[in-house]
Amino acid sequence: MVNAVENGSITSPRGFAADAVAAAIKYEGRLDLGLIVSEQPALVAGMFTRNAVRSAPVMLSSRRVARGQARAVIVNSGCANACTGERGLRDAEEMTALVAARLGATPEEVLVASTGVIGTFVPLDRVARAIATMRPDRTKGHEFAQAIMTTDTTRKEIALAGKVNNTSFTIGAAAKGSGMIHPNMGTMLSFITTDAAIEPSFLSQALSRCVDRTLNMVTVDGDTSPSDTVLLLANGLAGNPVLDQSNGAEFEAALSQVCTYLARAIAADGEGATRLLQVTVTGARSMDDARCAARTIASSALVKAAINGADPNWGRVVCAAGRSGAVMDPDTVSMTLCGTPVMSRGMLVAFDDQALRASLQLDTVEVNVDLALGTGCATAWGCDLSHDYVTINASYTT
Amino acid sequence: MVNAVENGSITSPRGFAADAVAAAIKYEGRLDLGLIVSEQPALVAGMFTRNAVRSAPVMLSSRRVARGQARAVIVNSGCANACTGERGLRDAEEMTALVAARLGATPEEVLVASTGVIGTFVPLDRVARAIATMRPDRTKGHEFAQAIMTTDTTRKEIALAGKVNNTSFTIGAAAKGSGMIHPNMGTMLSFITTDAAIEPSFLSQALSRCVDRTLNMVTVDGDTSPSDTVLLLANGLAGNPVLDQSNGAEFEAALSQVCTYLARAIAADGEGATRLLQVTVTGARSMDDARCAARTIASSALVKAAINGADPNWGRVVCAAGRSGAVMDPDTVSMTLCGTPVMSRGMLVAFDDQALRASLQLDTVEVNVDLALGTGCATAWGCDLSHDYVTINASYTT
Repeated sequence: MVNAVENGSITSPRGFAADAVAAAIKYEGRLDLGLIVSEQPALVAGMFTRNAVRSAPVMLSSRRVARGQARAVIVNSGCANACTGERGLRDAEEMTALVAARLGATPEEVLVASTGVIGTFVPLDRVARAIATMRPDRTKGHEFAQAIMTTDTTRKEIALAGKVNNTSFTIGAAAKGSGMIHPNMGTMLSFITTDAAIEPSFLSQALSRCVDRTLNMVTVDGDTSPSDTVLLLANGLAGNPVLDQSNGAEFEAALSQVCTYLARAIAADGEGATRLLQVTVTGARSMDDARCAARTIASSALVKAAINGADPNWGRVVCAAGRSGAVMDPDTVSMTLCGTPVMSRGMLVAFDDQALRASLQLDTVEVNVDLALGTGCATAWGCDLSHDYVTINASYTT
Repeated sequence: MVNAVENGSITSPRGFAADAVAAAIKYEGRLDLGLIVSEQPALVAGMFTRNAVRSAPVMLSSRRVARGQARAVIVNSGCANACTGERGLRDAEEMTALVAARLGATPEEVLVASTGVIGTFVPLDRVARAIATMRPDRTKGHEFAQAIMTTDTTRKEIALAGKVNNTSFTIGAAAKGSGMIHPNMGTMLSFITTDAAIEPSFLSQALSRCVDRTLNMVTVDGDTSPSDTVLLLANGLAGNPVLDQSNGAEFEAALSQVCTYLARAIAADGEGATRLLQVTVTGARSMDDARCAARTIASSALVKAAINGADPNWGRVVCAAGRSGAVMDPDTVSMTLCGTPVMSRGMLVAFDDQALRASLQLDTVEVNVDLALGTGCATAWGCDLSHDYVTINASYTT
């Protein structure tokens, strides 16, 4: 039994604190530097971008995550610190050293993530002055979620509380979107904390399984970022019997629920999005085929533009599946749009055009495609392609 | 030595005629049905979509092209005749039978191609009445190019004349874009005629090599169509010694020039496009890597939106290459935008921002990326992502 924590955030689990300040990294007077601290060293698992171009923070943090323990994560928006060479790496290291000095930790215990414009340097002097003013506490989880936003229009955070063997545990999380979103084995920036005590290899495996079904199934524009990072910190303060593969099912279910929430929130707030697109593919020859078809449909420019116009142009959905690489036979495909059948085993189904157009104007548009070839199934989340997406991205660096 | 034919079209080569009529397939009073006829049976080579969803005309024509000979091609816009099942196939066959009857040919000698909305049936009665009025002649090449347009804003046609052994030959061509353009081993609709006498296997190989370097390197929106078709008809009326691998280099060069022209024309007139994007990748580990990186950059939504805004956001270019699957080392990459160096062996290069923004407002934006890992090189053509693309595709079926 898992329950949402009212007003939950990244600091809802025991022993986590946060802070956020305005460091003028790209804009004045806007929270752009966030810090998460665990009062005692936490186990850590992480997943990172598979783009061949990796930001300096991704290079540094992925090395440090391999150690398995962390005390803090420093995160900035406004600058991705990517394509910045040796100097970028030194800047990322310096950010962690400054935080470590302030906390009485070693730099190796501090992780770093950055998001924003690619190819510019972090203004290290301003960041250093800002870090010197940070005073993390339990009340500032929301400010952290605010500080990591770039073109996001809403904070993305959640906390869930569950129980194992009469011991309650809590999971908190914060994430940011909202452009260059097409994660490949990592994800956009997502930070998850928990006070549950968890065996390290189970921690990594549970995170990997959950992210692959959730955050890795989000797409806004097909562009994988060099900054994608998800970190899960577990400090064990709940005092539960240590969870592993044998007794961790409930924790993993809760973690999956948290990741699904973040995935939907990121897709719904994709750059310029007016509605959430949820694509479920069933009956695929394999799970990989289902994932591939669902994500290709959700990222098709033509499907996304049609959803923007509430246009029941289902032919584009079938064609996107057809080019996805998934095995498919057009004669066996069935499809519903917002619950309305439009195609049945390869044949057109007559539908009420006006009624369907009305359904397509809902906040969430559900597309279900049954390939009828096997048992593979997967869900992907995306959003529509709007004029605002073009406006936002035609002038991002200015 | 190859020269452009003034006012050239699909009927410039000897022995080819064309016609176009308004059949009211989707709109009234608009040319939407075109016919190419060779006065004597022509050798034919073709390439077709690799989308698992194939339109009825693609299924029928790909079978017939395998026979190696054709007399005519009937083409309609306004309806793709895709996802239309058995009835769609019968309709496509009937269109060829009607043309065959009119020409005194067999249906097997007639090919068909259709483009337009997916999932609607061809209005066969109107098409039959229109075919009955067609009178192909040498003067109507331009009307054919007009009739195959959908959201295209310009006709795409060209003719080149060359010589082999003192015998002149001509190549003519017409093509249409301009959305659902991301050909995979076939292409959008392109029709090429020539009066050169050519050995059949060389005809196919030359077409395949040229298309892979040209029409298969075009992308407008990343969506591969179920209708992609390129057909090359060679009727031999030039009377030249039969061309094959040993003596066909000049013909293949001319064919490549024709295909490059069509590829650029289709990209420049992509849906909503305000400028042509030409991406050249050099120094790749392999030719496949170069193709993959060039096409991924040219199809990146973020790169395309930046080009729309004349924004020198080169980080997006590097990141698109990084996610393309091509082997790359960020520390060896160099890049120019419109001739201006912005990155050199992985390091940022200072540039005059205002001057570069001005260059990015030209009709053609050239992006050159040197991976410095090998000798693979390739060029891809695309266009910017504009508000008009969204407008066009949010209401296409209406």
